[in-house]
Amino acid sequence: MFVSGIGRTKFGILQKNLPELLYEAMTCAVEDWGGKMQHIDAIFVSNFLSGPLQNQLHINSLISSMLPGLNIPIIRVETACAAGGSALYLALMAEHKFNNIMVLGVEKMTGGDDSRSTENISMAGDRTLDQDEGLIFPAGYALCAQQHMIRYGTTEDDLARVSLKNHQNANLNEMAHFFHKKVDLKMIRESKVVSSPLKVFDCSPVSDGAAALILSREKSSGTDVRVAASSMATDYISLAQRKDLTSFPAAKIASSKAYREAKVSPKDIDIVEVHDCFTIAELIAMEDLGLCKPGESKDYVKQGRTLISGDIPINTDGGLKADGHPIGATGIAQVYEIVKQLRCEAGRRQVKDAKIGLTHNIGGYGGTAVVHIFEGI
Amino acid sequence: MFVSGIGRTKFGILQKNLPELLYEAMTCAVEDWGGKMQHIDAIFVSNFLSGPLQNQLHINSLISSMLPGLNIPIIRVETACAAGGSALYLALMAEHKFNNIMVLGVEKMTGGDDSRSTENISMAGDRTLDQDEGLIFPAGYALCAQQHMIRYGTTEDDLARVSLKNHQNANLNEMAHFFHKKVDLKMIRESKVVSSPLKVFDCSPVSDGAAALILSREKSSGTDVRVAASSMATDYISLAQRKDLTSFPAAKIASSKAYREAKVSPKDIDIVEVHDCFTIAELIAMEDLGLCKPGESKDYVKQGRTLISGDIPINTDGGLKADGHPIGATGIAQVYEIVKQLRCEAGRRQVKDAKIGLTHNIGGYGGTAVVHIFEGI
Repeated sequence: MFVSGIGRTKFGILQKNLPELLYEAMTCAVEDWGGKMQHIDAIFVSNFLSGPLQNQLHINSLISSMLPGLNIPIIRVETACAAGGSALYLALMAEHKFNNIMVLGVEKMTGGDDSRSTENISMAGDRTLDQDEGLIFPAGYALCAQQHMIRYGTTEDDLARVSLKNHQNANLNEMAHFFHKKVDLKMIRESKVVSSPLKVFDCSPVSDGAAALILSREKSSGTDVRVAASSMATDYISLAQRKDLTSFPAAKIASSKAYREAKVSPKDIDIVEVHDCFTIAELIAMEDLGLCKPGESKDYVKQGRTLISGDIPINTDGGLKADGHPIGATGIAQVYEIVKQLRCEAGRRQVKDAKIGLTHNIGGYGGTAVVHIFEGI
Repeated sequence: MFVSGIGRTKFGILQKNLPELLYEAMTCAVEDWGGKMQHIDAIFVSNFLSGPLQNQLHINSLISSMLPGLNIPIIRVETACAAGGSALYLALMAEHKFNNIMVLGVEKMTGGDDSRSTENISMAGDRTLDQDEGLIFPAGYALCAQQHMIRYGTTEDDLARVSLKNHQNANLNEMAHFFHKKVDLKMIRESKVVSSPLKVFDCSPVSDGAAALILSREKSSGTDVRVAASSMATDYISLAQRKDLTSFPAAKIASSKAYREAKVSPKDIDIVEVHDCFTIAELIAMEDLGLCKPGESKDYVKQGRTLISGDIPINTDGGLKADGHPIGATGIAQVYEIVKQLRCEAGRRQVKDAKIGLTHNIGGYGGTAVVHIFEGI
């Protein structure tokens, strides 16, 4: 199938409610597509926390309310922070049944009882093994970082360089949560510790936002991008059940399947969006995706290879760290960026000669992993 | 595709947690199937309220934890009370990709802060138009009942007869929430008013439970049942947006598509499971499905035509009213009952010569509707 339309809202602390975010991303994608909403045959919508945060479930029907008379199948998908990737995975599975499918992701995270954010996000971990033990996500990823440091000699400065790169990229992305925020290594080093070794600047923010894609069976224009592979895998939900904290098996399984499906190898990938909910997650993702060997990711970052000007640019939009992490929208926004790049529409952050792009979207501690590969045409 | 395995837990107020319910239904379905868990290629899991009620999201990964080494795609679907039907709809869409798919539904509703049940279920309605106006579901369905009464002369006793039939059927179903409860018309008539004209006995209970199906591309045994049609439609989420409260357009659209797909008409259906979250919903469903003309459903019930011994038996397992309504499991349990009947394994509640069965699963006020048709083989 082809990605024939893309749209998104700005990410950040927005004065917009859930239906407004949804509507903006939907109309934006339809406009980019050049078709009409009436020609959409089905919608897959991704969302993580609208129940606990917004008191609003059944959002598939909420979306139907915005489309009077359409009455099309609309389904909500939730697989924690991998919900966006999962919705796309499902939509691609339905290609034989529909001509044009919308994939939509949304999260309204701010403006309520913001003190409950960490508690709510913890629902992506096991209730007994993680939540009841007090293992909130920054603490869990801090354990991963500590193990990575012990095994591979990764340092806090290595993590800081991931954050710095992503903030610099976000400064080139006017839709990003931290578009205007100027960040340097000193600020990152001196930011407050959240859970050692992770500091504030190692953690993605709490953002509002929505993003949408339109998938079409038929190629419709010169700006379409082909989906070359779609793959998903799952794993134990809790870190306590894992043998190793420096790698997420589901991401390795999903990516190796995706490479086979697309008939490419990691070295063929020109541009990558990875799920950097924490800086350490970007390093782990690079290794799980086979972009480098285990333990080498920090060297790639240090050498500037993952910069927009590098040989394997990662998170050119700023990533979850600096573009923002409106959870249900994240996996969709990753695809938005890859399509922008493959269309050569990324402006000041355009990667030269990008032909093949990959998205890596995970839930929890990689308990869910979804990998997609795209080709410019 | 074929339904090659079925399993479920008892429904009711159970001393079992969410993972225990899931595991019991899964193993029960695999045992019925006669295959091995290792031969399941993907799982679609349906759940409505595990976030708000159980503090547990990302249950696809929770399920992966129970299946060490499998690492298969598992996705959670939520479309309010229609989540079970939606998960089945999606699984059938994936038939070209997998050989054996599990469809699993679960809801753990009791044992927490039970006073919040009504508030949590309200999340299936629009936050602004329904929830903020105080329109909880019993009140919304009471409005539907009142309009049905005014238009068609339906009476409280007509509603009571639906409840009585479903309780009598549940007395023949040892897995039902109200298996042991003996109910008569006097009890129903004298039960407390919840929202006039609906009384306690017009409302489905708050239940725990889980149910599972295994779908296979290849027919595996003489007990398999063929899926003849799978159809879904959506509509406005709020009653305030509807022109008519006596009919749900999404259910009409989904069922007419399903009849076309299965190449049958309503008169060919031998046995039906409808979504009787309230007694009035059973009457509306009969009319939306074209089993009778608008306004005639009450007469069918009065004449005993929807009894197990009638010409169009409805909710032979007791329905949501008396089998129970563990929301995410409900749409799956409906299929469980149809398969039991088409296999002639329904024991004391067996319908004679049942060849074609239909399930009708809705979310909210029919903002989502999913209809499936099954054929015994």
